[in-house]
Amino acid sequence: MNIRPPRRIRANISYDGTDFHGWQVQPGLATIQGTLEAALSAIEGAPVQVTGSGRTDSGVHALAQTAAFTLANRIPLDNLRRALNNLLPHAIRAADLVETEFHFHPRYHALAKTYEYRIWRAEICSPFERRYTHHHPYPLFLPAMIRLAALLRGTHDFSAFAASDDKDELGLSKVRTIFDSELLEQPHQLLYRVRGNGFLKHMVRNIVGALLEAGKGNLDERALLDALRPGYLDKPGARRPGSRAPACGLFLVSVEYPDILLNPPPRPAHAGPPHLDETAD
Amino acid sequence: MNIRPPRRIRANISYDGTDFHGWQVQPGLATIQGTLEAALSAIEGAPVQVTGSGRTDSGVHALAQTAAFTLANRIPLDNLRRALNNLLPHAIRAADLVETEFHFHPRYHALAKTYEYRIWRAEICSPFERRYTHHHPYPLFLPAMIRLAALLRGTHDFSAFAASDDKDELGLSKVRTIFDSELLEQPHQLLYRVRGNGFLKHMVRNIVGALLEAGKGNLDERALLDALRPGYLDKPGARRPGSRAPACGLFLVSVEYPDILLNPPPRPAHAGPPHLDETAD
Repeated sequence: MNIRPPRRIRANISYDGTDFHGWQVQPGLATIQGTLEAALSAIEGAPVQVTGSGRTDSGVHALAQTAAFTLANRIPLDNLRRALNNLLPHAIRAADLVETEFHFHPRYHALAKTYEYRIWRAEICSPFERRYTHHHPYPLFLPAMIRLAALLRGTHDFSAFAASDDKDELGLSKVRTIFDSELLEQPHQLLYRVRGNGFLKHMVRNIVGALLEAGKGNLDERALLDALRPGYLDKPGARRPGSRAPACGLFLVSVEYPDILLNPPPRPAHAGPPHLDETAD
Repeated sequence: MNIRPPRRIRANISYDGTDFHGWQVQPGLATIQGTLEAALSAIEGAPVQVTGSGRTDSGVHALAQTAAFTLANRIPLDNLRRALNNLLPHAIRAADLVETEFHFHPRYHALAKTYEYRIWRAEICSPFERRYTHHHPYPLFLPAMIRLAALLRGTHDFSAFAASDDKDELGLSKVRTIFDSELLEQPHQLLYRVRGNGFLKHMVRNIVGALLEAGKGNLDERALLDALRPGYLDKPGARRPGSRAPACGLFLVSVEYPDILLNPPPRPAHAGPPHLDETAD
């Protein structure tokens, strides 16, 4: 008998989120997770659950969302990648499939995530970019935005940047560490890039909303630092520093994991021979 | 009394053609020309006819299609551009509006047009490019394609590259002059760029089809030169050198006009003062 255990597979998923109701499965609605699960279940011939590094909202895009799933089917990974992409709509692509540690969890094991937010500045937004950028052609004072972006670096209580309707996180810590936060000027657009150890629901879009308020002269450095203090929202008259920027400008760029999970040491000899044809990808 | 004549206005129109049934008005279908005419008619308060430099097919894009229309409404051109873009869907944008000679005709006066065709080569097509490129990840012998692209330069009878169903051009000359024709390798994709004094219906897509046949080893230089000879299609057993490549990879890049039409000499004094506010754009 040659019964081999199911494989845990990690993949990078890119998607144009425009026509999807976000990552998470919702009955009767097209979602990224639901579409991936339907395609993988068809290949497996049994229900397959897909776990992502986190949810993305309706309309948000991903250059490389990390997903993992467990498969009993022994199809070589090159063939699995092709079969999966054949079944998926062209707005979702799966790449970089590798066999990973069986306990790998894309959310719990994530060390850092990087997001980008694009703001189109020219009066006329390119028809070819309109799905992938927030068109804001109105005057903005960039030095104030650049300074505020830098102030967000460090470990702060981001309660004032959490979704106002976020019930999932009630009682949980809203302290997060931002490693990098910068606003870059590019031709026709601004690019806000942020890398942190975790992000609350709507946090990046609320940060961009605050940066836009700073650009309009409605939010200064002291007000931002106030909003980052623990208990800020409990103060009478406390206001959120910015309103949520539109989803279409937001991209999940990458998710980082401990090297030991990405490049695990060789298996002990008693675990059987490595399946080179299946792990080479 | 101050009755001023209607203005002839020229504009550059860019569009994502994915969700449109081509340029030309068709009853009951969303077309670029029809959408522009509806928006301009709403501004004018009367029917406005829009003329383009040529039709683009269903699904074909434009970076700068040249269009012209005649307007009695004296709205300044800056305001007209904003009003028009407010009324248009985001997939169509109007730019560079200028008042032009009253007899200006975007098709009859065009000296040259440039098209680009994009072929995505990587196994996985980016979800953000899929609407704007033809995904062809299969083996292609590029040197043969590059040589054939260059052979198309010059004045030839392009009957074998015309649409097989093109009744509009029956009896009309199918001789055209190609000024530039080159295939460029870019990261992840091939870019075919062609500039000529005119193009038959489906001609660029049929040329790209022929280049793909050459890349697959199915069409050599002699067969291409044969297909460019007058009367080629009348020979028994004559086959078209390539089948039409998909619309989504094709972009109309620019249309060129005589400088005298773009920068006409100053009007004679008796024509009245120039309306600087309306022509500065």
